[in-house]
Amino acid sequence: MTERIVNFSAGPGALPLPVLQEAQANLVSLPGVGASALEVSHRGAWFLGVIEEAEANLRALLDIPSSHRVLFIQGGATMQFSMVAMNLPRSGQRHADYVVSGTWGAKALAEAVRAGPTRLAWTDKDEGYTRVPGTEELLESIDADPAYVHVTTNETIQGVEYPDTPIVPDRIPLVADGSSDFLSRPIDIGRYAVLYAGAQKNAGPAGVTVAIVREDVLARVPDRVPTMLDYRTYADHESLYNTPPVFSIYVLMLVTRWLRDEIGGLEAMLEQNRAKAAMVYDLLDTLPDIYRGHADRDSRSLMNVTFRLPTEDLERRFVAEADAAGMVGLKGHRSVGGIRASIYNAMPLAGVERLTAFMRAFASAT
Amino acid sequence: MTERIVNFSAGPGALPLPVLQEAQANLVSLPGVGASALEVSHRGAWFLGVIEEAEANLRALLDIPSSHRVLFIQGGATMQFSMVAMNLPRSGQRHADYVVSGTWGAKALAEAVRAGPTRLAWTDKDEGYTRVPGTEELLESIDADPAYVHVTTNETIQGVEYPDTPIVPDRIPLVADGSSDFLSRPIDIGRYAVLYAGAQKNAGPAGVTVAIVREDVLARVPDRVPTMLDYRTYADHESLYNTPPVFSIYVLMLVTRWLRDEIGGLEAMLEQNRAKAAMVYDLLDTLPDIYRGHADRDSRSLMNVTFRLPTEDLERRFVAEADAAGMVGLKGHRSVGGIRASIYNAMPLAGVERLTAFMRAFASAT
Repeated sequence: MTERIVNFSAGPGALPLPVLQEAQANLVSLPGVGASALEVSHRGAWFLGVIEEAEANLRALLDIPSSHRVLFIQGGATMQFSMVAMNLPRSGQRHADYVVSGTWGAKALAEAVRAGPTRLAWTDKDEGYTRVPGTEELLESIDADPAYVHVTTNETIQGVEYPDTPIVPDRIPLVADGSSDFLSRPIDIGRYAVLYAGAQKNAGPAGVTVAIVREDVLARVPDRVPTMLDYRTYADHESLYNTPPVFSIYVLMLVTRWLRDEIGGLEAMLEQNRAKAAMVYDLLDTLPDIYRGHADRDSRSLMNVTFRLPTEDLERRFVAEADAAGMVGLKGHRSVGGIRASIYNAMPLAGVERLTAFMRAFASAT
Repeated sequence: MTERIVNFSAGPGALPLPVLQEAQANLVSLPGVGASALEVSHRGAWFLGVIEEAEANLRALLDIPSSHRVLFIQGGATMQFSMVAMNLPRSGQRHADYVVSGTWGAKALAEAVRAGPTRLAWTDKDEGYTRVPGTEELLESIDADPAYVHVTTNETIQGVEYPDTPIVPDRIPLVADGSSDFLSRPIDIGRYAVLYAGAQKNAGPAGVTVAIVREDVLARVPDRVPTMLDYRTYADHESLYNTPPVFSIYVLMLVTRWLRDEIGGLEAMLEQNRAKAAMVYDLLDTLPDIYRGHADRDSRSLMNVTFRLPTEDLERRFVAEADAAGMVGLKGHRSVGGIRASIYNAMPLAGVERLTAFMRAFASAT
């Protein structure tokens, strides 16, 4: 086997090695099936078992109540920007409120504007997206009776994350893009009308998106939403209205099984993620002259640690030397620059130790 | 390695064994990359090479002119039903004409009705979808100036296929769902304004759809189409506006490479497909008392051979005994019953020989 690099990419991100090994062992022919997961019928018994286990694992890991449906959709979070905006009804007086704490929230807002009345409820864009609103601040920023409130639980590009499930009054549907911290910690899923997540950070490979949708949302979908953008199409057909992304769902099932059996659930995962993130943030705090963290302390992401070096030239050297040492994907998003270390669930502690050792050595040599 | 069954499933369908073996060898770590294709960044050099080769292979195999763009999209052909209907402008006087030769054409029509004025130009639904219109019949059925004409080149459920690229006047945009005979034969791609195909029959695994779109279509997309349903989103960003289904595109690239290098192109593929289909259809013609073909002779699909046995009880026995002999996926679609043998590109001649030998023995024993 070729040696594996340490993958700090923001997404698609690293997958757990045991998941890759199991997918590899069965790639030409699944035991008892005699065909690859890349070529089996989505209506056959084997895949029906896979998608059922994927849902059951998600329900167990996130403690999803029976009031919520679990849907497997294609198109990524960007497709969800439209689906949310088209499935949750708005009328003249009832706009949607968007809380924008980074680039992805801004994209969600821009897409919602195309579909109906929308309001920017809160943003710190002018301060460079360094934090999420506090609990009181969030409550004060939203309107009395919006159609829904949309938040982004973790901003992948800026590395700012809500420390807990955001709170809005129960009567207001709360919708979240949870793509980049999905399954990284327990959440209070009952608070969400819709939580959606592209799989390619913590849940599986690119090509499948999970949407967890409360039943009352399904009951109010307006007419004439295109079939594949209508949440009911997925809810009414167990995500099998047409051919789903079979292999992506299979790998997602393996990842959720790994979370359940090898990690021991999301409390245990959070503990690991906190320990990994603390190693990097502590280093930033120890060496502030060379590493300047982007996010405010209370909004620091456990998934994407973003920081700057004193000059862009030093940042280029940092990325190049890390790359040469087998640590890839550390370059910040092209829209913001800097450094970003994405340390998703599948990043082992040893990978973060290699990074911090490198960072210490780089600082000493600079 | 577990033994592989002979897979007659209608889709997802069998993939070429060398493709599966190569994907397997690299599944944990791609040589020179050090990560799996399931977890690499879609903006990295390796994947950019993959998607470029996928497009180049498709262009070479189908002889796609520079007037046409090649787009990689999620959501399957069903999403294309909406995208076509929303991207090709219609107005009060200019409806879209739909030619419906089977279940999938009917579904495409139903979705188009949701988006604008639509007309059923031709169907043989009342005769049970046994044929496609002839050249003159097609020309007579369509209107003088429709917004576009939509056809389904191969109806997967009924097993009826156009023997050649359908002809409409040059001034009328021709749109086709080519999902289930895509890459099975050369086509006159220059005749199409849009040809789309879910990959999971001949081109790759489920989870990616290819749309080949003429530039003039892109120039006329109406405003306010949701971003992920707008063909320009894909054309303007080389199908990388958001995270694409990386692994599905990788496998599609391997399949197109296999078609190019191992098969030798689509003329050679067509010759093989004709030989395989002839074996089954000849048998139907030889034993008409037990095997009754569904499609009219001139509309017989090279991809999906559909037939009935004298009783449903015999059909159940046929499927069960074939299954026990390692030949799976032969049950007809649940909406029509009967038997369907899907013999896509990756089905080897030896697989068809096993099927026809079984069919002869089954007939003798009945």
